[in-house]
Amino acid sequence: MTARTLQGFMELLPQEQLVFNHMKSVIAHTYEKFGFAPLDTPVLELAEVLLSKSGGETEKQIYEFTRGDTNLAMRFDLTVPLAKYVALYNNDLTFPFKRYQIGKVYRGERPQKGRFREFYQCDIDIIDRDELNIVYDAEVLAVIYTIFSELKLPAFKIYINNRKLLSGYLEHLEIADKTVDVLRLVDKIKKIPEEAFLEELKKLGLPEEKNSQLLKFIKINGLNNEVIKQLENLNVEKENFVTGLGELKIVIETAQKLGMPEENIQIDLSITRGLDYYTGTVYETFFDEYPQFGSVCSGGRYDNLSSVFMDKKFPGVGISIGLTRLFDQLRANNLLPIKALTPNKALIITQGEEFISEAVKLAGNLRKSDIAVDVMYRQCKFKKKMEYANKIGVPYLIIIGEEEANSKKYALKDMSSGEQMSLTVDDLIEKLK
Amino acid sequence: MTARTLQGFMELLPQEQLVFNHMKSVIAHTYEKFGFAPLDTPVLELAEVLLSKSGGETEKQIYEFTRGDTNLAMRFDLTVPLAKYVALYNNDLTFPFKRYQIGKVYRGERPQKGRFREFYQCDIDIIDRDELNIVYDAEVLAVIYTIFSELKLPAFKIYINNRKLLSGYLEHLEIADKTVDVLRLVDKIKKIPEEAFLEELKKLGLPEEKNSQLLKFIKINGLNNEVIKQLENLNVEKENFVTGLGELKIVIETAQKLGMPEENIQIDLSITRGLDYYTGTVYETFFDEYPQFGSVCSGGRYDNLSSVFMDKKFPGVGISIGLTRLFDQLRANNLLPIKALTPNKALIITQGEEFISEAVKLAGNLRKSDIAVDVMYRQCKFKKKMEYANKIGVPYLIIIGEEEANSKKYALKDMSSGEQMSLTVDDLIEKLK
Repeated sequence: MTARTLQGFMELLPQEQLVFNHMKSVIAHTYEKFGFAPLDTPVLELAEVLLSKSGGETEKQIYEFTRGDTNLAMRFDLTVPLAKYVALYNNDLTFPFKRYQIGKVYRGERPQKGRFREFYQCDIDIIDRDELNIVYDAEVLAVIYTIFSELKLPAFKIYINNRKLLSGYLEHLEIADKTVDVLRLVDKIKKIPEEAFLEELKKLGLPEEKNSQLLKFIKINGLNNEVIKQLENLNVEKENFVTGLGELKIVIETAQKLGMPEENIQIDLSITRGLDYYTGTVYETFFDEYPQFGSVCSGGRYDNLSSVFMDKKFPGVGISIGLTRLFDQLRANNLLPIKALTPNKALIITQGEEFISEAVKLAGNLRKSDIAVDVMYRQCKFKKKMEYANKIGVPYLIIIGEEEANSKKYALKDMSSGEQMSLTVDDLIEKLK
Repeated sequence: MTARTLQGFMELLPQEQLVFNHMKSVIAHTYEKFGFAPLDTPVLELAEVLLSKSGGETEKQIYEFTRGDTNLAMRFDLTVPLAKYVALYNNDLTFPFKRYQIGKVYRGERPQKGRFREFYQCDIDIIDRDELNIVYDAEVLAVIYTIFSELKLPAFKIYINNRKLLSGYLEHLEIADKTVDVLRLVDKIKKIPEEAFLEELKKLGLPEEKNSQLLKFIKINGLNNEVIKQLENLNVEKENFVTGLGELKIVIETAQKLGMPEENIQIDLSITRGLDYYTGTVYETFFDEYPQFGSVCSGGRYDNLSSVFMDKKFPGVGISIGLTRLFDQLRANNLLPIKALTPNKALIITQGEEFISEAVKLAGNLRKSDIAVDVMYRQCKFKKKMEYANKIGVPYLIIIGEEEANSKKYALKDMSSGEQMSLTVDDLIEKLK
């Protein structure tokens, strides 16, 4: 039998897994710091529940199978399970309901570079009944900013927009009947040349004058306060526009009060994030020097989470980080934030079988003080032991021989500087803490 | 569309999920402290890989399906994926290889109380090439002891045995040809009366005298050192017996050196853990007052992890905690270790819309100091706000009104004592840390 792992399923070596887990735990920890409670829904759900509101593309990719007379499916995102969860338990939940979920999702895509069939999504959502305060949209911005700052990744920028602005502006231009087509085009604007964009607009049968106004609108840029001023100066009076601008102002002002640097947040009127789901604020996050990674954290505000399952209205705002893909891209570009080879702070080696029990005792003491240590029980030449310590990349080596066992002062070797000290247990603990 | 979750799939409310995650993180943290590196293999594997060494029962329970021309299956444990992993990457791994994996596994069992179709296993294994030092068997014991001590669960006892002892003793009695049948019977001894056990032994055609010797052997008990003395006094010379006794002595002595209390570790010669896989040390863990929970942490030593995939020999020792079932049983018996209702240390409320930006700023400062806080942006009567704070069970409330915004000294209310203080940001941080 040949051991094989399925294509499109990421499987890491321990030293990579440590980095992956570090990133995962920075994300989880930040989510908790912002008051989000963890959630963990099943990987398997009734197929009819998962497919209740999905379109054609997703349906083709879903892993679905029958067991007895039940159609089962593996979740393809964490949003539909959340909608189900809120519908099922809303009487037991306290609103606003702030939850995070970090888990694997499944899509049976054709395997290709950078595409995974099993991948981690790291989601937050804030859901309320009937109405959700706009300040949460700024809080979500702060969450994205905090995570990407703490991950120590390349320079990043969060692009923000409010979908009501474009809708309102199209009403203002009296071409609101073309909203769906225009939104689809705007979504593409960064990928096609300006002429091609105008050409496509023309094809929609829109008068040239309106097209150039639209292009000018989408291209409004500058510092965030300047963009807002330019938007105000347009004097558009449509309700959608006025509301959207008011919301965007609150989000940007709050971000500024929270001390988020201007260079990390940019209003971009061309960000639309698909067609149906989002209704207000939308976010995308790009690395300044690596636009080819695509958006590494996206999301937005929606009017109703669970319309398929419920009559009641649950508006929300949320984001998702596709961690597996992000990790894969960072790794391929040598951008992983830390280099860890072992979870251990120190490795204990002994100069002979007879000191193993001393090593075991010392390891027990260090672990009681919450210091991760490993012991090498195998006896071999000192050189071999050093080779092993280097290979696993442990920062400190503790050596126990005759002298150390008698004096209860242990030799501690700093593996990077080569420096060696002789320390009591208490000093060791203090040093390694 | 009715929102529904599949039967046999645990789905928790946020306050329960917090407790579950607390337990999961104590386990993960202890594993890391003992030098185990994390691993995360796919949930989906090739069916032929997963089923390569499984027997009939597992095969019936596995979630298996076909996609294109590939037979896929959801993992039913973390051991087969580990065997595959070691076979696949052994050239890139450093041995001894210490890994932990905490993940969901799947078994399509008939749903019944206490049985789950999706459940967490929390595994550690130490694998080496050709030979693995026996001291690791004591280290595994220390891991179990540390976890169940730190989880603050009811009194527990780890039962330990070495399978070589019984095999050797059966050789000594010259009934080694009945080993398989006898082992199967011994495995049942705690569930059937002594007479029934002897009756069953008789049915195997064994002479009465040997049966009573066997029963006497299995029932040897007392303090661990006494049990070892009694075993030594049997003067059995078969190699299996001598080796097993030597191994058991080292494990017990090491446990004593590490300061593990006698009341938590008990040699029990009737523990066998199934028939094939384990070859030396075996472990089971029971709560003293709740034997009906069954073993909550089991495992043992095996000669070869990956014989299906490889010619090379990889001996190992490992354990597994079935966390989902354990959590379910603790919850049903009101034994959950902590009560957490919210991840937050404090909730900030404002006395009016105009203080929201002050609240946002304060929240930002507290979060920068790694304190999890939430802000209630919705404005309503003070009584309603207090009701909300009580409902989510947050330990502290921070109140911002006119006075607080001006003086930059914030009202902090201890929700359990009712005590109220007026504190600067720095004092708040110190108090809440």
